[in-house]
Amino acid sequence: MHVVDLIHKKREGQSLTREEILWLINEYTAERVPDYQLSAFCMAVYFRGMTQEETVWLTEAMMYSGDTVDLSLFGDLSADKHSTGGVGDKTTLIVAPIVASLGGKMAKMSGRGLGHTGGTVDKLESIRGFQVQLSPENFLRQVQQMGLAVIGQSGNLTPADKKLYALRDVTDTVDSLPLIASSIMSKKLAAGSKNIVLDVKVGSGAFMKTPEDAKALAEQMVSIGKACGRNICAVLTDMDIPLGYHVGNALEVKEAIQVLRGQGPDDLKEVCMALASNLLSMVRGVSLEEAETLVKESLSSGKAYETFIRWIAAQGGDVAMVRDPSLLPGAKDHFEVTAPRDGYIGKMDTSLVGKASCHLGAGRETKDDPIDYGVGLVLKKKTGDFVRAGETLAVLYANDRALFPKAREVFLESLTWTEKVPQKQPLILGIIR
Amino acid sequence: MHVVDLIHKKREGQSLTREEILWLINEYTAERVPDYQLSAFCMAVYFRGMTQEETVWLTEAMMYSGDTVDLSLFGDLSADKHSTGGVGDKTTLIVAPIVASLGGKMAKMSGRGLGHTGGTVDKLESIRGFQVQLSPENFLRQVQQMGLAVIGQSGNLTPADKKLYALRDVTDTVDSLPLIASSIMSKKLAAGSKNIVLDVKVGSGAFMKTPEDAKALAEQMVSIGKACGRNICAVLTDMDIPLGYHVGNALEVKEAIQVLRGQGPDDLKEVCMALASNLLSMVRGVSLEEAETLVKESLSSGKAYETFIRWIAAQGGDVAMVRDPSLLPGAKDHFEVTAPRDGYIGKMDTSLVGKASCHLGAGRETKDDPIDYGVGLVLKKKTGDFVRAGETLAVLYANDRALFPKAREVFLESLTWTEKVPQKQPLILGIIR
Repeated sequence: MHVVDLIHKKREGQSLTREEILWLINEYTAERVPDYQLSAFCMAVYFRGMTQEETVWLTEAMMYSGDTVDLSLFGDLSADKHSTGGVGDKTTLIVAPIVASLGGKMAKMSGRGLGHTGGTVDKLESIRGFQVQLSPENFLRQVQQMGLAVIGQSGNLTPADKKLYALRDVTDTVDSLPLIASSIMSKKLAAGSKNIVLDVKVGSGAFMKTPEDAKALAEQMVSIGKACGRNICAVLTDMDIPLGYHVGNALEVKEAIQVLRGQGPDDLKEVCMALASNLLSMVRGVSLEEAETLVKESLSSGKAYETFIRWIAAQGGDVAMVRDPSLLPGAKDHFEVTAPRDGYIGKMDTSLVGKASCHLGAGRETKDDPIDYGVGLVLKKKTGDFVRAGETLAVLYANDRALFPKAREVFLESLTWTEKVPQKQPLILGIIR
Repeated sequence: MHVVDLIHKKREGQSLTREEILWLINEYTAERVPDYQLSAFCMAVYFRGMTQEETVWLTEAMMYSGDTVDLSLFGDLSADKHSTGGVGDKTTLIVAPIVASLGGKMAKMSGRGLGHTGGTVDKLESIRGFQVQLSPENFLRQVQQMGLAVIGQSGNLTPADKKLYALRDVTDTVDSLPLIASSIMSKKLAAGSKNIVLDVKVGSGAFMKTPEDAKALAEQMVSIGKACGRNICAVLTDMDIPLGYHVGNALEVKEAIQVLRGQGPDDLKEVCMALASNLLSMVRGVSLEEAETLVKESLSSGKAYETFIRWIAAQGGDVAMVRDPSLLPGAKDHFEVTAPRDGYIGKMDTSLVGKASCHLGAGRETKDDPIDYGVGLVLKKKTGDFVRAGETLAVLYANDRALFPKAREVFLESLTWTEKVPQKQPLILGIIR
């Protein structure tokens, strides 16, 4: 096989065979095919696309390029949840203990944040003592004992995807649907769970800006998961508005704890309900209605909250901080952003809200930047609210007052003002099964 | 400037600025931009194209990436001819001495053959003693003295093009019109001539298979040349049929000598007339009709032939071989390919004729293969001829009889037979000025 022939086939809009794709990815991972040929191939894929079959084969090739996690010990109960990334997205902290409390086995690997979106691992590390690195044995034992463990990505999982993603990042071939879908799914599949719920975010704070694009991605990912023998569904959720009111690591843990205690904001609860119920319905083989009832009970009875506390304790986290969230890391200074005018908030450019939080020290620009766990922002008003000039829109938290002006400027820039009541958008835009 | 931003611009179908293209090519040549980014860029260019301006800027960037030849010493008389490559194309051997005999200054660099097309340098080397390497001083002195020198490509001309072409070759990004045009023109422009005639071949034996593609390439090259201040035109010539009857190095020299002596086949004469007249008309600033008259005189008076002899002598070639072409390298064996049937030759897949000649040892598969100067084939029939079964179609020449069967098979495969008189195609398909 010659790489240039495979590039040519794709350039001409033809489909590659399973053998060709497998060979290409294996040779690339083994460094017998150079980057310059793969980048040309990826650009051809950007323009020509891939068939559903090709996308599955690419996913499989990347999934099997390194280690895979064996969760067969949990039978059909293993469960995973993946979000395509948003602002204020603390759903894993809520959904994982709910599902674990109801018999699901959440053996989850999570990422760190980069750019304007946060990462679950960073949020968990804002709880003093929490360990995100467990040996494979301890990881599996903990899942078996309490149904839940969340660790940072570890081991030699999907080296082909790591290599290819790094290449795509510097050759402007990231935003190709089959390449995105196969990248995400190769990691999820290698992580081994039988049941997978995908939270595909849509809007200004998400990678996918339109419902059409998000739906297309969700459909591709669901069909890949099914082709590989998994139970899978995707929930399309609105990310044209931050999820909940807290943005920043410890601040998001606080809001998650509110929900687990039966309080917290409605939008966050609604998304968590949808994700948990859909995942549970697959895990337990029950209807969505039954799953919803179970999820509500778990929350109202405190079972989910108790599971959360046991989980945090098992991974070495300071449980006192959970029982009294005021003990979580805070910030020395705060600053109230007030409304410059009367009016309705018609829209929020949610990625700018994430960026404002980054300016306060809550995020990373590059993967080696340190994170300030206690900082971030708490929204007081969101899209659809009417505000009078001078009213507080948000409170910014930082450990350096000098960071406030820029964060305020970016935050205000995120807002579009209108005179009329803006139309309310649904939070759940669809479910792909 | 960031390469990925430039790739993105092109991927989105936008135009790059002069500064961006110059920067990209300079950084690439200096190895500060990696191959994997350039190959993605080239693939984006394949799909999105380039504007005329961008193509000119790319050409200039590559032209100035290394040395350029200074022919200012010859004022406006410097002249060059470039062919996009064909089978049996010995026009340089004829056109160069004609133009030189009429005052043009042909300071020409020529390539070696690769694949099914021959190279002028190889043909010249079939004359014993001919030197294709001259020092820059001797090269210019010879042009000044007799109006003509042809050497192999030398010096550090257009290193950016060399590097980029090698990359395109292995990433399936060769056949992009702006990349082809800028690659050819960067070399031609760096070679320094004020007046340039391009012989753009069209058909089964050429890189450009259709008149439309050839015309588009010719127009791009002519507009690049003009934008860079040169006098330039392109002659589109038919390569759906071998040019002349001789294919192979010494065999082609023989046929060129026939034309210079006022004999030789009509098709070869017609193409040489068109190329020489168009070039001379630019060099001398006369009408095409005046130029044609001068060219005819040069041939009929023997001036062109005398110039040829002086040129060969000046570069160390054995003039006895020119005066008596039977002294040129020959082959030990020959084989007559006879017609398997009655009928008209309706078409010739000309690249297969070139390949048949390669099978006899006349060409190279890779650039380090040796060449057998005396071998090749002489056609007895061409497209349009009526043939009776058993009549000789071509005579094959080789130094190893074992090569005949395969060459015969490939040659016969090149032929399409018809019952009716095939329609005659014009030899000159157009002139782009």
